[in-house]
Amino acid sequence: MSLAAAIRTIPDYPKKGILFRDITTLLGDAKAFRRAVDELVQPWSGSKMDKVAGMEARGFILGGAVAHQLSAGFVPIRKKGKLPYKTVAVAYELEYGVDEMEMHEDAVTKGERVILVDDLIATGGTAQGAIRLLQKQGAEVVAACFVIDLPDLGGARKIEAMGVPVRSLIAFDGH
Amino acid sequence: MSLAAAIRTIPDYPKKGILFRDITTLLGDAKAFRRAVDELVQPWSGSKMDKVAGMEARGFILGGAVAHQLSAGFVPIRKKGKLPYKTVAVAYELEYGVDEMEMHEDAVTKGERVILVDDLIATGGTAQGAIRLLQKQGAEVVAACFVIDLPDLGGARKIEAMGVPVRSLIAFDGH
Repeated sequence: MSLAAAIRTIPDYPKKGILFRDITTLLGDAKAFRRAVDELVQPWSGSKMDKVAGMEARGFILGGAVAHQLSAGFVPIRKKGKLPYKTVAVAYELEYGVDEMEMHEDAVTKGERVILVDDLIATGGTAQGAIRLLQKQGAEVVAACFVIDLPDLGGARKIEAMGVPVRSLIAFDGH
Repeated sequence: MSLAAAIRTIPDYPKKGILFRDITTLLGDAKAFRRAVDELVQPWSGSKMDKVAGMEARGFILGGAVAHQLSAGFVPIRKKGKLPYKTVAVAYELEYGVDEMEMHEDAVTKGERVILVDDLIATGGTAQGAIRLLQKQGAEVVAACFVIDLPDLGGARKIEAMGVPVRSLIAFDGH
């Protein structure tokens, strides 16, 4: 079975005209989940990776598995006000408006090699914010990795324009 | 280094008199993270596990890694209103008041063997709610697994009284 076939599409969610790509069916399918993590890990399996960063909340699931598989540390990037220690923050664009995301100031150190992992890239606003946070603390963001890309929304191009290579396992047209 | 030494204690967070156990330093330490996941997995490494369930948001990090390592599927249990498909819900006790958590109605099927994974058990309210949700859909909850137990708060006893064995890697006195 293809990874794409393990993803459930929910029409008109969260609003009319949107085809929502529901990754929970892939996560719940042991074989598909294993394969997605293994394919995300594959390009880095021979090289030293210091950290894997994941964004709250779905990015934590794949990010945790990828970090463990690479024997790397995991860095949670969270919505404002959720982390208990000293943080650095960055504003990022949502579909409507702006929000802030945070990371512990000591989550990465200068020169550490980090990959960013999330389930999906759409407009790329959250990934862009996360990369800025990691770079602000001196990390080298080696790549941004996603299970699903929605290329029509242009997020991957935005990330590559920041000099960070993008890797995704599946692309869906439309959104 | 012991796992306990990889955890940062933050005094007076989120309010005066509380010693907050910050697991992000353990997650960020590649060796400690790897060891925590491997120790969580160890009792089940020889047996078939269908699913690993994790609670939003920190439970997703360890849960994702444990599910991948066991070649099991992952089931996200989330705060109300976050899951896109048909859900089942259960009320659970917070320190002050009550909230609801949800799971997709098809996330587990009757008879599936599931372990619940979270970073910490305190009063056990969220774990109790998650177990009720899984059992409601017919899953056999084989164990509830935590990195940290705060035994003074009685959560583990509450879960064992439900007939679900509890396993934790570290215990901290006080809270």
